[in-house]
Order: sequence, then C-alpha cells, then structure tokens
Amino acid sequence: MKHFRITLQYDGSRYDGWQKQGNTENTIQGRIEALLAKLFEQQIEIQGSGRTDAGVHALGQVASFSVQTDIGPAKVMERMNTFLPKDIIVTDCRLTDARFHARLNAKRKTYIYRVVTGNVRPVFGRQYVLWHSDTLDTDKMRKAAECLVGEHDFKSFLGNRHYKKSTIRTIENITITEEIIKAGEAEFPEIKLAFTGNGFLPNMVRILTGTLLEIGEGVRNPEDMESILTGCDRALAGSTAPAHGLTLLKVEY
Amino acid sequence: MKHFRITLQYDGSRYDGWQKQGNTENTIQGRIEALLAKLFEQQIEIQGSGRTDAGVHALGQVASFSVQTDIGPAKVMERMNTFLPKDIIVTDCRLTDARFHARLNAKRKTYIYRVVTGNVRPVFGRQYVLWHSDTLDTDKMRKAAECLVGEHDFKSFLGNRHYKKSTIRTIENITITEEIIKAGEAEFPEIKLAFTGNGFLPNMVRILTGTLLEIGEGVRNPEDMESILTGCDRALAGSTAPAHGLTLLKVEY
Repeated sequence: MKHFRITLQYDGSRYDGWQKQGNTENTIQGRIEALLAKLFEQQIEIQGSGRTDAGVHALGQVASFSVQTDIGPAKVMERMNTFLPKDIIVTDCRLTDARFHARLNAKRKTYIYRVVTGNVRPVFGRQYVLWHSDTLDTDKMRKAAECLVGEHDFKSFLGNRHYKKSTIRTIENITITEEIIKAGEAEFPEIKLAFTGNGFLPNMVRILTGTLLEIGEGVRNPEDMESILTGCDRALAGSTAPAHGLTLLKVEY
Repeated sequence: MKHFRITLQYDGSRYDGWQKQGNTENTIQGRIEALLAKLFEQQIEIQGSGRTDAGVHALGQVASFSVQTDIGPAKVMERMNTFLPKDIIVTDCRLTDARFHARLNAKRKTYIYRVVTGNVRPVFGRQYVLWHSDTLDTDKMRKAAECLVGEHDFKSFLGNRHYKKSTIRTIENITITEEIIKAGEAEFPEIKLAFTGNGFLPNMVRILTGTLLEIGEGVRNPEDMESILTGCDRALAGSTAPAHGLTLLKVEY
C-alpha cells in the first residue's frame, strides 16, 4: 500500500465546491476520485485538507489517498494531469506516511480574497477577483481586523446554521495589502486580504471579508468588529462576499 | 458631431475576432456597434486599429467613431461599460480630431505571445497562454528573430492566400524574455515574445511565433529563418501558433 500526498490547483468557477455530495459528481473531489478509480481500477477515497465552497479556487489545496500500486509519485502526477480537466492540475505529488491525513494534520491554512477597486471593471482574471467600484478605506479595514487575530469563538462568521462542532478557531494573521496591477496602459487597484489560521468555519473567510468590506465602505465602523465577534450571532456580521474572489493559497503541516 | 477615440480590453476567447463579417454578430466590432446603436439611437460605425483574429485578446485595442451627441467622453465610457459584456471593457475614452482614424493613423503596434513551458499545465490564466511542455532554446529563437527586424516582404508569414495588398511591413523590434511566474508554491516558466512593428499581415504574428517555436524546439535551425523570409512562400514557414496565446498589447499614434 502506498500513501500519496498531492497538491492541487483548481479554478473553482464551474464546480460545486470540493466536497463530494450525494449524487452530484460536479465537485473537485468527485472528479479526482472518478479519475483515480479509472487509473487504478479500484475505488479510492481522497481526503482533502478541507472543503472549499462552490466557486472558490485553490492555488495549493492538499489531499491524500492510499492505493496498492507499483508506480511512483512522479508517474501518478503525470497520469493524473494527462486526464484531469483543464481547470484542475496536480502541481506536486509525493509519498507520505500511512498516518498522514490531509485534514487532521493541517497546522495552518492561508486564504486570499482579492478585490479590484476603481471605476474600470477588470476583464483579465475577472474570474478570480471581486470588482468593487467604490473606494475602500483599508486603514479602517486593518484596524477592524486586529481584534479578530487570536483564539476566538467565530460563531458570528459561521455560514451553516446546522453546524454542530466547535466554532472556536485561531486566526494567526490577517494582512490587507494594496497594489496597482498594470494591464496594458490601464491600471487596476487591487486589495488583497490574506487570512492565516488553524482552520476556518464554513463561509467564515467570505463573511469576514464581507464584513470588512462594509467597514471599508464606511457602512460600519471599525470599532463595531469587536461586538460583532463577541456577540456570537451570524445576524450581527456583514454579508457573505462572493465565492469567486476567494482562493485557498496554501496549507501547512 | 463629436469624434471619440476609445481604448479597449477584451478577452477574445468566445468571439469570432474583431471584424464584423456578414451575418455573424459575434465579433467585438459587432458587439460594440450594436451597443452604440442602442445608446445613441442611430447606426454608428467604428474603426478599429486593425483586426484581431478569432480568439485573440487585446489589452490596448484602439478604435474611433463619430456621433452627434451632447454627452462627453467620461459619460460615453461609463455608459458603454455598464452595458458591455463581462469580457469587453473600455479603459479610456477621449475626444479626438475629425481627421483621426484608428487604423490609418496607427504608427506602431505591439503584440505579445505568451508561452508557458514546463511539465505542469497552467490552470490560472490558461485562456491567455499557450502551454508548450517541451523545453525551448530561447537563444536560438532570439538569433532567428534578428533577421526579421527591418523592412521586409513578409509574404512567407501571410495566412490569407487571397490577400491582394502589399505584403511589405517593418518590424521595429522582437524581444523574447523569460520569467518564472509564481502561483502558490508552484512555478511556471513563461516565455514572452513581443513584436513591435508598423503593421502586421493576417496571421503574421502567429506564423512568426509558430516558426520561432519550431526553432526553439530544435526542429528547425536559426539560420533557416533568413531563407524562409526571402523565399516569400507561406509553405516555407512553420505552423500558425494557436490564437489564444496572442494579445494586442498597444497601438501607438
């Protein structure tokens, strides 16, 4: 039995998220398991580091699976990449320990949410950024983000009412950076929100982003974030930012 | 009568190129003229700096049109951008002289052709680059490109057999640069071919690129380029590189 750890990139635009669910095969996990079943002529279950929502992208999703095979990781990666659809690719494949579990062993994950501001709608890369034509006050957003860092109950930022597990997570770091992206003669101001933590609740990064955007717009005050957090009530937080602006950047073990 | 000069970006993936042709409305020019007809309630013809092939993109296409209107360029741009499809955008709009003609007055155009090499197929931005997994010898490509610079008859690189006009053009500059594009933990080696000239024949940049790629692969020798050029015969040159790797970067006046 060999144990493989793979790193994946995917454009989530046309998928129903990572996680296989019931009859829908249109998930990243479903596509990969279907491919592995063909390649190895047996049913193989893969463990992802975590789910990504429908429409969310990944630059460094990690998954693990075990299979009885003679072929090594380079060949597994090559064969997978030959048959994967054009919006999914394996960028790394290595042998790992039988005890390795992509979700349970993950120490740290980083998500980035990209926002293009300014009055010109971006055309290139539009699938991966949110266009937000209003100006955003990033100083206010940074100030509001401060109180989120650390171990907290993030129930206010939980998008699933039926979630039964602990809603306590640790955010190690939130950085909000600005950059001007040149595309030909045109310039697109981009704000990048990076969230690093030991794990994130369903929709948590998108609700955090939606709330920070409302603070950046001036609809809410930076000081409000503390009471939103401590209130432990989804109704207190802002809206869920659209999925397509979000990318799982990396998973650390 | 007001005379407008607009700069456009478009993702050419789903269009039949720039030029309006017969019944097909699925061209960039067709879409823009249809929109202008609605906005100004009259038929308006636009002049592009030149055609781009089906599937070719633009970061800086320039076009001009004239219309009897009270509204100014900022408003024209705003209105156009509100109604243009998500893969077309106006990045600049200004008033110009009645004598200005986007095609006839163009002094210089720059096209870029992007190639990603390496064994990992790119997922993000795959719509705008050619993936070429074999290694390319860029020194050989640069050497071959030297003899193309200057005023020449580029008939060998003409993709349209029924073309009746002069096939003499001046290439001012061809640069071939290499860069490693980081995407998450993965690295994608990218080769960028930039062609600047006073004008290009139908398919010329794509046939030049196809020929240079064959030289980079070692299928042809750099020394062969001179005889391909002077032979004035399409059969001597290499294949036409796929449209989706090509972008019209800018037009200078």
